[in-house]
Amino acid sequence: MNFQGLFYPKSIAIIGASTRVGSVGNDIVKNLVEQGFKGFLYPVNPKATVLYGKQCFSRIEDISGVVDLAVIAVPETSVLGVAREAVKKGVQAMVVISSGFKESGNSNAEQELRDVCAQNDVVLIGPNCLGVINAEIFMNASFAPLLPKFGDVAFLSQSGALCASALDFAQSAGIGFSKFVSTGNKALISEVELLEYFAQDESTRIVVIYTEGFRDPDRLRSAMSTLHKKSKPVIVLKSGSTEIGIKASSSHTGSLAGSDTAYTALFEQTGMIRANSFAELFDLIQVFSCNILPSGNRLAIVTNAGGPGVLTADSAVNSGLELANFDQKTTSYLKSILPASASSKNPVDVLGDASVERYEKTLDAVSADPNVDMVIAVLTPQTMTDVSGIARSIVYLRGQYQKPIVASFVGEELVRDGTRILTDAHVASIRFCESASSALGKLFQYACISDVSEVQEKTAMMFSNISPGLVRAIFDETKKNGYVSLPEAKALDVFRAYKFPTLKSVVVHSSEEAEVRIAEMGGRVAMKIFSRDILHKSDVGGVALGVTEVTARKEYETMMQRIQDNAPHAYVEGVLLAEMAPEGGVEMIVGSVRDAQLGHVLAVGFGGIYVEIFKDISFGIIPVSEIDVQRMIDKLKSSKILNGARGGVQFDVNALSETLLRTSKFLFDFPEIKEFDINPLLVFPKGKGVCIVDGRITLDI
Amino acid sequence: MNFQGLFYPKSIAIIGASTRVGSVGNDIVKNLVEQGFKGFLYPVNPKATVLYGKQCFSRIEDISGVVDLAVIAVPETSVLGVAREAVKKGVQAMVVISSGFKESGNSNAEQELRDVCAQNDVVLIGPNCLGVINAEIFMNASFAPLLPKFGDVAFLSQSGALCASALDFAQSAGIGFSKFVSTGNKALISEVELLEYFAQDESTRIVVIYTEGFRDPDRLRSAMSTLHKKSKPVIVLKSGSTEIGIKASSSHTGSLAGSDTAYTALFEQTGMIRANSFAELFDLIQVFSCNILPSGNRLAIVTNAGGPGVLTADSAVNSGLELANFDQKTTSYLKSILPASASSKNPVDVLGDASVERYEKTLDAVSADPNVDMVIAVLTPQTMTDVSGIARSIVYLRGQYQKPIVASFVGEELVRDGTRILTDAHVASIRFCESASSALGKLFQYACISDVSEVQEKTAMMFSNISPGLVRAIFDETKKNGYVSLPEAKALDVFRAYKFPTLKSVVVHSSEEAEVRIAEMGGRVAMKIFSRDILHKSDVGGVALGVTEVTARKEYETMMQRIQDNAPHAYVEGVLLAEMAPEGGVEMIVGSVRDAQLGHVLAVGFGGIYVEIFKDISFGIIPVSEIDVQRMIDKLKSSKILNGARGGVQFDVNALSETLLRTSKFLFDFPEIKEFDINPLLVFPKGKGVCIVDGRITLDI
Repeated sequence: MNFQGLFYPKSIAIIGASTRVGSVGNDIVKNLVEQGFKGFLYPVNPKATVLYGKQCFSRIEDISGVVDLAVIAVPETSVLGVAREAVKKGVQAMVVISSGFKESGNSNAEQELRDVCAQNDVVLIGPNCLGVINAEIFMNASFAPLLPKFGDVAFLSQSGALCASALDFAQSAGIGFSKFVSTGNKALISEVELLEYFAQDESTRIVVIYTEGFRDPDRLRSAMSTLHKKSKPVIVLKSGSTEIGIKASSSHTGSLAGSDTAYTALFEQTGMIRANSFAELFDLIQVFSCNILPSGNRLAIVTNAGGPGVLTADSAVNSGLELANFDQKTTSYLKSILPASASSKNPVDVLGDASVERYEKTLDAVSADPNVDMVIAVLTPQTMTDVSGIARSIVYLRGQYQKPIVASFVGEELVRDGTRILTDAHVASIRFCESASSALGKLFQYACISDVSEVQEKTAMMFSNISPGLVRAIFDETKKNGYVSLPEAKALDVFRAYKFPTLKSVVVHSSEEAEVRIAEMGGRVAMKIFSRDILHKSDVGGVALGVTEVTARKEYETMMQRIQDNAPHAYVEGVLLAEMAPEGGVEMIVGSVRDAQLGHVLAVGFGGIYVEIFKDISFGIIPVSEIDVQRMIDKLKSSKILNGARGGVQFDVNALSETLLRTSKFLFDFPEIKEFDINPLLVFPKGKGVCIVDGRITLDI
Repeated sequence: MNFQGLFYPKSIAIIGASTRVGSVGNDIVKNLVEQGFKGFLYPVNPKATVLYGKQCFSRIEDISGVVDLAVIAVPETSVLGVAREAVKKGVQAMVVISSGFKESGNSNAEQELRDVCAQNDVVLIGPNCLGVINAEIFMNASFAPLLPKFGDVAFLSQSGALCASALDFAQSAGIGFSKFVSTGNKALISEVELLEYFAQDESTRIVVIYTEGFRDPDRLRSAMSTLHKKSKPVIVLKSGSTEIGIKASSSHTGSLAGSDTAYTALFEQTGMIRANSFAELFDLIQVFSCNILPSGNRLAIVTNAGGPGVLTADSAVNSGLELANFDQKTTSYLKSILPASASSKNPVDVLGDASVERYEKTLDAVSADPNVDMVIAVLTPQTMTDVSGIARSIVYLRGQYQKPIVASFVGEELVRDGTRILTDAHVASIRFCESASSALGKLFQYACISDVSEVQEKTAMMFSNISPGLVRAIFDETKKNGYVSLPEAKALDVFRAYKFPTLKSVVVHSSEEAEVRIAEMGGRVAMKIFSRDILHKSDVGGVALGVTEVTARKEYETMMQRIQDNAPHAYVEGVLLAEMAPEGGVEMIVGSVRDAQLGHVLAVGFGGIYVEIFKDISFGIIPVSEIDVQRMIDKLKSSKILNGARGGVQFDVNALSETLLRTSKFLFDFPEIKEFDINPLLVFPKGKGVCIVDGRITLDI
């Protein structure tokens, strides 16, 4: 996709340009003309001649020059017609403001609009959106009244109404935007294509997204990887819970997943910085936009107010920051300039009667300290406080040091002038001091993210000797027979085809055969009924444990009798004899749930009798990388058990990781899998591997 | 304590009144005179004659009239002298602004100041504070520049500097204060005495506290109980982590407690509403102050912006609210007045082009709906939005319905006029819509709190047949011998003295005696070394399990030999023979930690091998009530196990509760206990009780 025509058009046609002041079609022309767009503007309106000094055209085809971008604001019934005309005219991009499409149940019209553009390589924004702004060229192709400052933040919002608030906040906070896109219904262009563009866009350093959901997680992750390589953070506010497809499912993993599971995993895997509220989103925009990345997490706090200093410190520690231990020189200097009752330790309390000079000297000293990576300057407006003077000091010192700094002037009217001085100079100014800490915590979090793309690329390749064809055949046969759930014997065949370690097992069809096979297998086995019609084997007497050669015949016959009594209509294919699981393993659970937007989500958790009690489980969008798997295991409380908390026995975490990567590959190869549970997976002591004891696979019909 | 002289003085002496403009001693006189205090004012300053039109006095004794309140702002070295003079003059209350006391290491002077006041029944605020404000009588006896509006919120802050910000925010938000107290060092009067006063104060409906810590939790809980009876909520912002005294302790409970454990328990037990940040504190003040309590948790959201509507709904659900299902009538009506593309479901999206009329009709309809308990009105400032008009509609409708309502106008400059209209009319206005939901969630949470005082009073009485004297004797003997930790045999005697269920046990002194006793006890026993010098019995070979009559002699002699080898200097008092624990119980842990400010904190948790992994533990400040114990158990994830999650076996929760209440009584009776652990406490199936298998008690020296 070529976004040049969208963001840097030389000429724009506004189809549906209106003479009625206050209408959308009028506002857009007005914004483009009055806010200073320098290219050609062609209002299209059969009934008008001139609008805001620009000649009007009846139809887009009447325009003699080239048209790069068409902005469409006509009633929904006319949209398709004018869109086709615009395509014919050769536009590179189209912004459809008009609503009345998918959001009103009109999905067909939206699909048609999408196809018209896609087939002609035309970039389509919308429909049902506010428009697009590029302040760099003074282009406000939207009906938002404000043209924001030009800056380095690209802003994407699925909610048009939120754009209005965002522009208002940004203006107050002195934040500039590189591009501003109301994505609307995202018929063709969604966040992922725009992320790919912003990765390359020289004007954009930070991307901010409000979304109700992403699509194409694979492509999203690849785009994120490119953005990481260019050190461009992506900050996301995600609203709305997504449906985990199998909420009412009988699978263990399904019952352990929450509605936010998939997105939490996605954000962690891609290194997107998540804002938990609109308030936090704006804090993060300021802190990321106004600062370079810190080289560590050691925070210095300077305050003229003890209480807020403590609150800031509490929040800093909770946000993964550390309170800097000042260099001895700094401490001595601070003691020499501060009153006796001030605190020269971090947080440095310069007291309520602090002059500008005392505040500035202190801030200067801690900013210069080599043990300090970032600074928060807290102020409350006390009787003797020169708010504007201190603001000017902060602005001055920000220029002297290459370290992130956030000012927190805690108040309203009394601090307004000071805050204005800060934001005009592009110093991050966060009203509430605790929020300043947590935003810096996320800045540090971003600074720690390593690029994961290469690992991911390798992972996809590493499995050999697997037999997708065999699995395909089993699945096809299962579906052909009208079943969705694989019986255990078949599930075991599938696991073996992908070289998952399983217990030895064999299917027999008579009591005599059972006796012989058990003798061959040596020792004791579990005997389980093999029938596609029986899902819960124990319930119908279809499981016997500890069966030996001696008891084999009798157990077999008794089981058949029980099945006859309890499930007379079940078609019995045989009996599965399985090795008894060895002792000494930790029971884990490996499974997947499927998210409506993001696809398969891999899960690993602590199994056994406590699985439902402690819900110790973590998730990753597939395909997972080695780093993802490491993170998933580390996140588990029970990873302490795996790593030797229980009497020092270390378990085979490598084999567990390998199983997770293998599962990821398997799920990736077979998107039609609906539910997948390995429960339990026994993880044995280090070097002894893992083993699937029981598994369950359900398919989409 | 009589606070009349503090909050409603007829006459005030300002000792340290200064002629230097901008000084604290000048500001206070100026504030009192210019902001309209109607009583007598006596500036005390030997060098001045008149200040702001008021005659000055050399010393307080020179004042001929009665002085109710002395405000002291002299250098710290003079404070004690003038305080004594003020007492002699007969003041009822004293506010000491001067700093230089405990906060500067000058604890003795502070103690002396406290004693002077306490011995003469003089209320003392401070030292090291900003002062006291009572807007009801226009008394600003502080150096804060603003006299707030008179209202129903009492505000207490341990941080003077925070008061400045609070007053600034309150003015913007239209919040009025009944009393405003900068508590400073709290030498004599802390939050608890003030809470007792506000429980009775007719002008106060809500109490808001910023504190770094409380003292006297017992009295605090009793005050909270009175406040609950009067439906006066208390909102608290607590900063700073408190030290759990036994951080480096070897006790299990100690290792599982966090620094915030005690306060979290206190807030839950007393029903204080906790603000997690200064930002939230101010949201809560607005929402509590502007609204009555809701009769349920069903929320209606009206918005002109889809995205913020969804964010509000997400946050509402996370905050314990429910999205109201509208009555059929409401839905039909909304459909009839809203455009087709609007959402008439909750959240109701009236769309970005909504007129005042459309917004108002919608808000009116949902407010009238019987299925709606509370309302949030969201607005973003879009091109066609009449922000002030909608603000006026909200004000009008707030007067029509007896339901909580919060407005969230998401923006800055563009919404300022509208916000002003709302706050002037005392409508809660929260900038960020997610915060509106969570603040209403806490309002609902408060509405659900039931009074717990009577239960607590009963609990203290219910134990009979316990023998505190016996325990006292054992403790005294232990301390006399220079030990802090009780050996197991002694700990068992203590448990039995308080009628805790323990395993049968006996101490023997020879292998022959062991043999005889085991025969009497029948079956198998655990044999453990009994020595005050051996803390970790297993480490020195001091434990043998499953000992029978047959093996008794040999085991005894072998153990003695091992002790001889491994702990040659230990004084051995004998060997403890204990019944083996019965099968079938759940292992729990019961213990305590001691908080430096709040005293003993009772803990209950899931025991066994996973205790350190899942840290499933909950806490309560002692003495706990039956309701507290219920809450503590319900909070545990493992309460599911107790209630039958594992194969349907229900365990004896009643006996567990009884043990917790008994432990509370025990800890209450013996404050010198430093560490206390019952680990494990076996909880048997319902009706079969509990049993202490091992316990550990450590004393303060």
